[in-house]
Amino acid sequence: MNETRDLIIVGGAVAAQTSAIYAARSGMDVMVIADSYGGQINNTDVVENYPGFKSISGPDIADRYVDHMRDYDVTEEKGEKVVDIRKDDGVFEVENESGEVFESYSVIIATGGHRRRLDVPGEDEFENKGVGYCAVCDGPLYKGETVAVIGGGYAGTEAALYLSDICEKVYVLSRSGVLKGEEITIDKVKKAENVEVLEQALTQEFYGDQMLKGLKYEDKNDEIQKLEVTGAFVEIGTVPNSDITSQVETDDSGHIKVNQDLETGVEGLYAAGDVVDWGAQQLIVSGGQACQAALNAADYVKEVKSS
Amino acid sequence: MNETRDLIIVGGAVAAQTSAIYAARSGMDVMVIADSYGGQINNTDVVENYPGFKSISGPDIADRYVDHMRDYDVTEEKGEKVVDIRKDDGVFEVENESGEVFESYSVIIATGGHRRRLDVPGEDEFENKGVGYCAVCDGPLYKGETVAVIGGGYAGTEAALYLSDICEKVYVLSRSGVLKGEEITIDKVKKAENVEVLEQALTQEFYGDQMLKGLKYEDKNDEIQKLEVTGAFVEIGTVPNSDITSQVETDDSGHIKVNQDLETGVEGLYAAGDVVDWGAQQLIVSGGQACQAALNAADYVKEVKSS
Repeated sequence: MNETRDLIIVGGAVAAQTSAIYAARSGMDVMVIADSYGGQINNTDVVENYPGFKSISGPDIADRYVDHMRDYDVTEEKGEKVVDIRKDDGVFEVENESGEVFESYSVIIATGGHRRRLDVPGEDEFENKGVGYCAVCDGPLYKGETVAVIGGGYAGTEAALYLSDICEKVYVLSRSGVLKGEEITIDKVKKAENVEVLEQALTQEFYGDQMLKGLKYEDKNDEIQKLEVTGAFVEIGTVPNSDITSQVETDDSGHIKVNQDLETGVEGLYAAGDVVDWGAQQLIVSGGQACQAALNAADYVKEVKSS
Repeated sequence: MNETRDLIIVGGAVAAQTSAIYAARSGMDVMVIADSYGGQINNTDVVENYPGFKSISGPDIADRYVDHMRDYDVTEEKGEKVVDIRKDDGVFEVENESGEVFESYSVIIATGGHRRRLDVPGEDEFENKGVGYCAVCDGPLYKGETVAVIGGGYAGTEAALYLSDICEKVYVLSRSGVLKGEEITIDKVKKAENVEVLEQALTQEFYGDQMLKGLKYEDKNDEIQKLEVTGAFVEIGTVPNSDITSQVETDDSGHIKVNQDLETGVEGLYAAGDVVDWGAQQLIVSGGQACQAALNAADYVKEVKSS
């Protein structure tokens, strides 16, 4: 039988490491379980918006978070995914792929998410060489250039609007005939003079040399067209990695519902970062949520252990 | 007459600079107004809990935030306090001490707060040399040592509980006869074996050599006692710097009420960081809130300007 720890954190990126730092500093006995470290930021070329670092590569900042966590007494269980979290008689059981079970009085789910991919030729090859998945993160790298946004939904219209202030020209390739998302955002995308919406445009392929030069798409007449762009943002949504417990409530997009204290509906079970249903998909926001979740978990565990 | 900017940010520390970075990156025309830069973190010796930096001095991280902001096109108006923010016909007027008025479509209040001081001899001399104002920030520097917490209210009891897991012995000097704050926290403080509450203890003086060696207090029999401690945390509350506009609602402690989107009750008027009524007084939390406030302000301004 395993010992019952104060806190188990599930996840391997900024939210997990920030929670671990704050929990360890609060005197908790902490374990972190993750299949791998780094998360989505490992796929980002340059991070320019984490306050304190004017410019740092995605993998470098990811490494710094892990190093920082390792300054504290945190038990790491790395290499396998968590497949279930359940609460039994006041104690959480966290199970990994091999069926190994770890116990704790509290849990923070900080599993993040992954960007939905198009799965077309050239997507892997030109990732971070023109093809990106986060307009807010990488948009400013394309100042004054011509770019494409793949996706005309919530993420796509937000991205197009964001890029319209930065780029010379923004094409939006919408799979369906209509833009979806917030009405007000759609209105603004339609009004923006440098945004052109290509309806029923199905992206088929990315091409280039060392760097992206453009993409090919099938138009509404089923003809293949070429579009010359130096940047292309695949904005067809993020898939939160929330499928590890049936005990929490999720919204339509799979994000875990938490309150302002980052609590789920289950006492002692918290969530923070890109896996939750509010915030912004930014390192600084995930970190802030994770800090709050850890401090609240510390309070909760002290209460449980003293009662 | 001044031009009407997209956003005015009032404040000079992490929340202000983070808002400015995100707002500028979103293409907004931004002005920052502050009497000085740095805020409370300038009074913190060592920061060990801002993810990405294992250990950095308070003034150094404060400088990094300002440098980071200056990578972007942000207009700085430094040297005077803001004394009023009012909204007139959809446009905000932000007035400084000299009576100069700046206009914008949106405002973020990021003025932070200041720790309430005891104002006793030795307090200035030993600040950051044993006397501190933030147990969560500096507590781990006193691992295994004997410390005092000045204050038996909400902040004091929270601090005592936090320190009880880290320090050998924690004295709590409560001005009144009873501990105040959350019942559950008080219970735990009373139960903690290494916490001793000194009732009706009025701190009179801090003493030491290069570093703090102890403090003198007047006990309930009006006699002066000495207490040998290497650390003393003045935890008699923070005073939010919220007294710059009558247009927002504040809670009993003066913190500005905002929702999960960091909006006050006034459309286009946001607040973030230590001045607001939720979160934790931590750099990473203030930064996260500021990022969200800036992205939401950007959406709001686009809506206003396109209507």
